[in-house]
Amino acid sequence: MVLYVIGLGLGDEKDITIKGLEAIKSSDKVYLEFYTSLLGGSTSIDRMKEYYGKDIILADREMVESGCEEMLEESRTMSVSFLVVGDPFGATTHTDLVMRAKERSIPYQVIHNASIMNAIGCCGLQLYTYGQTISMVFFTETSKPDSFYDRIKSNRRDGLHTLVLLDIKVKEQSIANLLRGNKIYEKPRFMTINQCIEQLLEIEELRQENVYSKDTLCVGLARVGQDTQQITSGTMEELVNVDFGAPLHSFVIAGDMHFHEKEFFESFRVNSETKRLPPPESSDNEDN
Amino acid sequence: MVLYVIGLGLGDEKDITIKGLEAIKSSDKVYLEFYTSLLGGSTSIDRMKEYYGKDIILADREMVESGCEEMLEESRTMSVSFLVVGDPFGATTHTDLVMRAKERSIPYQVIHNASIMNAIGCCGLQLYTYGQTISMVFFTETSKPDSFYDRIKSNRRDGLHTLVLLDIKVKEQSIANLLRGNKIYEKPRFMTINQCIEQLLEIEELRQENVYSKDTLCVGLARVGQDTQQITSGTMEELVNVDFGAPLHSFVIAGDMHFHEKEFFESFRVNSETKRLPPPESSDNEDN
Repeated sequence: MVLYVIGLGLGDEKDITIKGLEAIKSSDKVYLEFYTSLLGGSTSIDRMKEYYGKDIILADREMVESGCEEMLEESRTMSVSFLVVGDPFGATTHTDLVMRAKERSIPYQVIHNASIMNAIGCCGLQLYTYGQTISMVFFTETSKPDSFYDRIKSNRRDGLHTLVLLDIKVKEQSIANLLRGNKIYEKPRFMTINQCIEQLLEIEELRQENVYSKDTLCVGLARVGQDTQQITSGTMEELVNVDFGAPLHSFVIAGDMHFHEKEFFESFRVNSETKRLPPPESSDNEDN
Repeated sequence: MVLYVIGLGLGDEKDITIKGLEAIKSSDKVYLEFYTSLLGGSTSIDRMKEYYGKDIILADREMVESGCEEMLEESRTMSVSFLVVGDPFGATTHTDLVMRAKERSIPYQVIHNASIMNAIGCCGLQLYTYGQTISMVFFTETSKPDSFYDRIKSNRRDGLHTLVLLDIKVKEQSIANLLRGNKIYEKPRFMTINQCIEQLLEIEELRQENVYSKDTLCVGLARVGQDTQQITSGTMEELVNVDFGAPLHSFVIAGDMHFHEKEFFESFRVNSETKRLPPPESSDNEDN
């Protein structure tokens, strides 16, 4: 029949498009991709089930990475909706899914929606003055991948802004559990803007090419597109202790700003009312 | 009361989100921005009025560029929806509108949607391997702005893809009518992929820095997000005579492609069934 790949947007269950909702309602089976991102605020799966009037099957990491074989085959004989937070082409895994449907001549329809890649425009820095987007992964004692550093360097050389996508770990196994074959998963982890800034400064410290510094102007964004959205701008030093609250967090390193961009930037500037993180000794937020 | 700035997405009247539709239904007045983009395929204003159950006031270029003063003031005492094709932050003018609402403490809410800046992912080239987006304007005898050339150069040096947004001229006045103060407007014009390629090659010919050539791999996209969406890939030479049909057109100059990107690219490759433009002598498409 048909495979609908449907973007849910960034907010809650009501950020789906009419076209997307109609596709769900006409589907025999509905899957929700559940590990490259997460739904906004108070949106629970139960609320989605109720609002969409359909049972929802969670497509976890194993299912998606193993290629959603079963779902693809089902799409030959029934209508199937595959729901994705943001836009369907925001993550490589979903692009691969569409490619496989195409190869096998399974009819598919993509229903677009907002993703962080365009909604980031809400901070006032114009989308066409961004360079390459980078991803920041959680550093460990033994692994501190710093390929982003060269990309930021290249963007800043050209005066461009850099969108930094922050790491999400959902349904990860510890190395011990992985080796033992135990299907025990760690608590989900979402990188905070504070952790991102710390890692950025750690790499600048190591590389010392003056690509950016604690005085570099940046914008921190949390829960973009949701009712509790927060946008706060300032230097890395100013933002490193700001409390941005619940996930997801996103981060922008500003390049050259035009007058209007600067005006917008200043309107979000950190001030005396901006909520700060509690001092480190009384906090265990950093490692959650 | 409140100013809703609502993205309509890229397709038709059903690409609005539930949240957006609810905002319209709760509004006392509904404006539609009508000159930086256009609505998909068969979507007429009348169809929108009927589907949204509201009268729709067209906000033309004059209104938007003069700052939508009246609309902003109305938002103090009533609920107003301002509809925008794509996402509200796709165009500088709308970002300015939000900034002015913010400055005047007029409550506003932005409702995001897909824009070409993220929906372009449908061609299979990953969004995080794009460099800076460029705009291609209609050349005239006396004006051939080529600042895009350096941006493409920079993107290609870093192996990045380049999204090219093609010019739209809606409600333009001829110089003669402008000077005479005649409010007579030219027919809307939308740059085709073919015109874009011709202009690109014209500038390469002039600049001769080998940034790209007729053999450079590219993707042409028409009517992204609509039922009649067309994606065709090939060299500039292969694509320059492909008939992409009705607007809007978008164009991507490929950078280095990963294996999966290349596979996707080839699946859209121009072939013997691809529709070609009629030969120039029998065609007046180029200037429409």
